[in-house]
Amino acid sequence: MTENHDPILSPQLSGPVLIIGTGLLGASIGLGLRAAGLSVYLQDISPTAEAVATDIGAGVPLSAVQARAEAGGEEFTPPSLVIVAAPPDIAGQVVASALNTYPQALVTDVASVKVQVLDQVLASGADARRYVGSHPMAGREKSGPVAARGELFQARPWIICPHEASSPNGVKMIRALAGELGSIITVLDVYEHDQTVALISHVPQAMSSLLASRLQDTPLYALGLAGQGLRDTVRIAASDANLWVQIFAANAQPVVQTLYGVREDLNRLINTLENPTGPGARLDLAQLMSEGNAGVARIPGKHGTSPTAFSRLTVLVDDTPGTLARLLADIGELEVNIEDLRLEHSTGAQVGMAEISVNPSKHDGLVKGLSERGWKVVK
Amino acid sequence: MTENHDPILSPQLSGPVLIIGTGLLGASIGLGLRAAGLSVYLQDISPTAEAVATDIGAGVPLSAVQARAEAGGEEFTPPSLVIVAAPPDIAGQVVASALNTYPQALVTDVASVKVQVLDQVLASGADARRYVGSHPMAGREKSGPVAARGELFQARPWIICPHEASSPNGVKMIRALAGELGSIITVLDVYEHDQTVALISHVPQAMSSLLASRLQDTPLYALGLAGQGLRDTVRIAASDANLWVQIFAANAQPVVQTLYGVREDLNRLINTLENPTGPGARLDLAQLMSEGNAGVARIPGKHGTSPTAFSRLTVLVDDTPGTLARLLADIGELEVNIEDLRLEHSTGAQVGMAEISVNPSKHDGLVKGLSERGWKVVK
Repeated sequence: MTENHDPILSPQLSGPVLIIGTGLLGASIGLGLRAAGLSVYLQDISPTAEAVATDIGAGVPLSAVQARAEAGGEEFTPPSLVIVAAPPDIAGQVVASALNTYPQALVTDVASVKVQVLDQVLASGADARRYVGSHPMAGREKSGPVAARGELFQARPWIICPHEASSPNGVKMIRALAGELGSIITVLDVYEHDQTVALISHVPQAMSSLLASRLQDTPLYALGLAGQGLRDTVRIAASDANLWVQIFAANAQPVVQTLYGVREDLNRLINTLENPTGPGARLDLAQLMSEGNAGVARIPGKHGTSPTAFSRLTVLVDDTPGTLARLLADIGELEVNIEDLRLEHSTGAQVGMAEISVNPSKHDGLVKGLSERGWKVVK
Repeated sequence: MTENHDPILSPQLSGPVLIIGTGLLGASIGLGLRAAGLSVYLQDISPTAEAVATDIGAGVPLSAVQARAEAGGEEFTPPSLVIVAAPPDIAGQVVASALNTYPQALVTDVASVKVQVLDQVLASGADARRYVGSHPMAGREKSGPVAARGELFQARPWIICPHEASSPNGVKMIRALAGELGSIITVLDVYEHDQTVALISHVPQAMSSLLASRLQDTPLYALGLAGQGLRDTVRIAASDANLWVQIFAANAQPVVQTLYGVREDLNRLINTLENPTGPGARLDLAQLMSEGNAGVARIPGKHGTSPTAFSRLTVLVDDTPGTLARLLADIGELEVNIEDLRLEHSTGAQVGMAEISVNPSKHDGLVKGLSERGWKVVK
């Protein structure tokens, strides 16, 4: 065996797969892999989490398999793939330990930060060639194995983060894993990854939390008037505090670099608002708004299309069972495909607004067709 | 007539109503009032805007009515109500002018800031007893009379802002106006109003624009990975820059007071992230997150219920016409009322996720019923 020989002999995704950490992500991966017919071992420092994951069918406890082998039952087949689904701050250490314990296995992790995990693996002296980082961008508001679903990763991005020494066969194996779970694969190095998630996930989380934090002392009558704008901007402020403390700490540098820019703009805005009739004040405000316009316009829409590629209309729907279903049935009969749908309510209203995005070529016909069928179309 | 006599003799909403400014809001009010059978006069400094509003049926041009009267046709009936739907920065001046021109009329405006408008009216020396401020909290991404709809205000909040000297009959007339247009009425004084909209609308707009502005230089591959979190937090950053410059300038003081708090928290966050392993760093981050958690939890849900009052589940829907309709028809047949619905897509995916909120007592039965009907239920 030469030094350049790939330490992972086969790029195939085959069992057994060991999942260390059977929370939401680990147990969901287990369910998905079991559904694909793979053998899955489970291991968690929490006996309860491991038992729940086992009960829902995410796999079998590693300890039970090993105990049976030691008792002279079936022979223990070591895992060819180890997936570390431990919290971000210990993921690197658990990966290093798995590399040492299973010297034939490819090891990946699913933490949402990647530089820190790789640094810990490299510093550990373990065989880092058999480590390839992963970041499946999926989650739920609920946590723990009881919330796990095998479909959690379907149609979600899965970022694969190989490093310089990563096994090419190992990278292929992780591609097979993400593909098996229905994810859309993107490959980035760990630095690109952490910069990317700082911008598209961690800084938005910080801004949403900073804004929501202002609502702590807001009179309730004011919050009762809140519209969709406020609700949308603070929605993610409800996220798991413990997890986010680890994420911010682990990705502090890229996040703070972006926050410097936010602080500069915020200071400019505050200075302008302190003297709103001063020279250049209107221009400063216009610049803030137009820079925001320009930034949001760069986010691609569904299927990678431009965000302005769809036309919207709003239909009034009352608050009784089946109304929305009838509306969508009518839209289906008009042979229009809905690109996006959002249901809005005002506090105290018994009437909602269904905002529907469609291909622009379908817009006018849909408005006409729905109006003819008696729907109140607002846009 | 004593000094305390109400200058507005009748609280009834009766025509003619004069709408000054026939953009989106003015023309929409015209359409709504015409549908209610009221006579509506229209006036706009833009002949095009006035003509479009006339063409869509929002009313008749004031100039044409006056010309007919001068030519010896029907007598000119002055308006009993004048609604000023001019841009925020000139609304006060237009209100004052209308108070002078129509000495029997109640005058309101629909600007989204209220202290500045009232100050301008009081300073003008016009008969401010006949002025009552309004803020219908409705809008669209599109602007101008061509986007107008009579249903625009249905089930939306309408804040009425009387001042100390406002005519009691005038306040009743504005209640009748908002009620006729289907709005949900809240009464606040102008200071409460401006504080409220600073918190629930203007500061969220500033935060969204500050965040979106960071996306101007983000690599496109990173934006392609953006999930619903980013999309939601920056959605309103796409708002009309010209309008928002006026709003920020007119409500600078309450907005900047709240932004001081944001800046303080942001500086604390930046200091923590500059030394994420320092003493107390984790505690600082946990505090930011939990303050955000606490703030967002205070926003009431639909119909004023607590935001945690509903259970959510997610159903995978493929991207063909009628799929969502079939799903909602199935939910209707299971006799479950949908409290909220959100459709999510990942870039490049041909499969979407319909996130459905229902009464918690219906959750488990719905998951079972939908699964039995072959739907993939994720949550």
